[in-house]
Amino acid sequence: MKNLPNHVSIREVGPRDGLQNEDTFIRTYDKVAWIEKLIDSGTSYIEITSFVSPKWIPALKDAKETAAKVKHKKDVTFAALVPNRKGAEAAIEAGMDELSVFMSASETHNKRNINKTIKETYPVLKEVIQEGKKANKTIRSYISTSFVCPYEGKVEIDKVLSVACALLEMGVDELSIGDTVGAASPRHVDQLLSVLLKKVTTDKIAMHFHNTYGMAAANCLASLQRGIHKLDSSCGGLGGCPYAPGAAGNMATEELLYLLHQMGIQTGMREEKIWEAAAFIERKLGRSLDSNILKVRNAGIGGI
Amino acid sequence: MKNLPNHVSIREVGPRDGLQNEDTFIRTYDKVAWIEKLIDSGTSYIEITSFVSPKWIPALKDAKETAAKVKHKKDVTFAALVPNRKGAEAAIEAGMDELSVFMSASETHNKRNINKTIKETYPVLKEVIQEGKKANKTIRSYISTSFVCPYEGKVEIDKVLSVACALLEMGVDELSIGDTVGAASPRHVDQLLSVLLKKVTTDKIAMHFHNTYGMAAANCLASLQRGIHKLDSSCGGLGGCPYAPGAAGNMATEELLYLLHQMGIQTGMREEKIWEAAAFIERKLGRSLDSNILKVRNAGIGGI
Repeated sequence: MKNLPNHVSIREVGPRDGLQNEDTFIRTYDKVAWIEKLIDSGTSYIEITSFVSPKWIPALKDAKETAAKVKHKKDVTFAALVPNRKGAEAAIEAGMDELSVFMSASETHNKRNINKTIKETYPVLKEVIQEGKKANKTIRSYISTSFVCPYEGKVEIDKVLSVACALLEMGVDELSIGDTVGAASPRHVDQLLSVLLKKVTTDKIAMHFHNTYGMAAANCLASLQRGIHKLDSSCGGLGGCPYAPGAAGNMATEELLYLLHQMGIQTGMREEKIWEAAAFIERKLGRSLDSNILKVRNAGIGGI
Repeated sequence: MKNLPNHVSIREVGPRDGLQNEDTFIRTYDKVAWIEKLIDSGTSYIEITSFVSPKWIPALKDAKETAAKVKHKKDVTFAALVPNRKGAEAAIEAGMDELSVFMSASETHNKRNINKTIKETYPVLKEVIQEGKKANKTIRSYISTSFVCPYEGKVEIDKVLSVACALLEMGVDELSIGDTVGAASPRHVDQLLSVLLKKVTTDKIAMHFHNTYGMAAANCLASLQRGIHKLDSSCGGLGGCPYAPGAAGNMATEELLYLLHQMGIQTGMREEKIWEAAAFIERKLGRSLDSNILKVRNAGIGGI
């Protein structure tokens, strides 16, 4: 197997992407405890919350309190999702290292998610980028529905390429190419990356998979084979999107670690710490999570 | 993505590997109904039962009745697992097209599973092979623990190669290379196949993955990239092994179909028929199955 990276940086998105759709409100105290467990696993990157209106995402209405209570750690990038300048200001004030903006590659999803056309979205993100750069922050942008749009079906690779190039030109430091509904196949991933990597270097790209159809690990593998060395995942496989009918949880961090470590790819993270963190948030949410490894661990089996 | 086959033959092992560990006994009437739904999906191969002692596998104690009641269909291979000559005779009498024998690549698992050393196992399988060939049947052999043994850990590729070559020399028509505990990584799959395919052609090999650590789809992908065009799977992701602590269900047929069809690889099968069959057996078993697609379908979402 060729082209595999030696090291992969995992972007832990559980506290934001993972929790944003949960009906059960996790108390700030427990959120902070979970985030600290995740940091303790050795992660170098964690998206801890989202500075959006509590009306949009009530699960993360305590963004400010969460950010204030988490102990920052050297060499760990703290990120937060922000939809606009106001959110950016709040995230900067809260001491975030990186601001994550978002838009979609498909018009309909973009419209439903942020009530703007793609063209109308750019100036909003530009304000965030300028605000962030002024404050010496790095900027990440999600490109949602980069493979399949729940309203439009398969998304043309050229559309993703066009949005990606526009964002990079505007000063975005890293793109997160999202399979929002979890419907991509490894061949689609391979095709998209073969086009994208002609224009963009791998250090600017993270891949973001959901596991709706059980394809997330296979899609990560296809990405690794194209030299991708940044992958998003969510502890416990938590996740989903309120504006993407049919979307299930993210690639589970514990399964991603298993995949990478078993293939001899380093991450700097400890699997057992992520299992513990996953078991912790599962207890707090009070429901069984969709993570194969967590099930094995809970059953007390799998002694290999 | 190179080397991918245009067509994959799926070996449906749900009625045998899937059901053998279930505590709930599925009535013969329902088993037959399920098998006929599976046949209706367009499968060309189905392992319908196991002619072993009911003491070993009570879930399949109605092997003879099941085989008698299922309507055979042209162009569909009916197979059954047999442990010895007595089982072979019963399977032949029941009109099976193919007999499946089994042994392990690791000594300890072989000993625990069939109470014999690897060397002692060959003559027993030889009797089955001779009996089968006399009756004009094809013979398949599972090689369990081809990657990881729950007792010995990682299994050397040379051990798998040695067992594989011995079985083919004895007249076995097809090998099923099993990741019994579901612990293989895509790189391990790639490494094993790079060695095995120097001695054996792809038409003699099927790969058999379990999804304990969420790696089954990624391992199927790694196999396809080596030109493998026969894969085992189980409707609803049912499965496990009583002599392999920690083993979870097989690669789910519905997820395998999604993977293959989305990648443009033909199977001759219809996904919606497999979903229906999975939902049927889930109802009969009375518990929620570990299949991402089945969950999406049950939730009535995923309209893409």
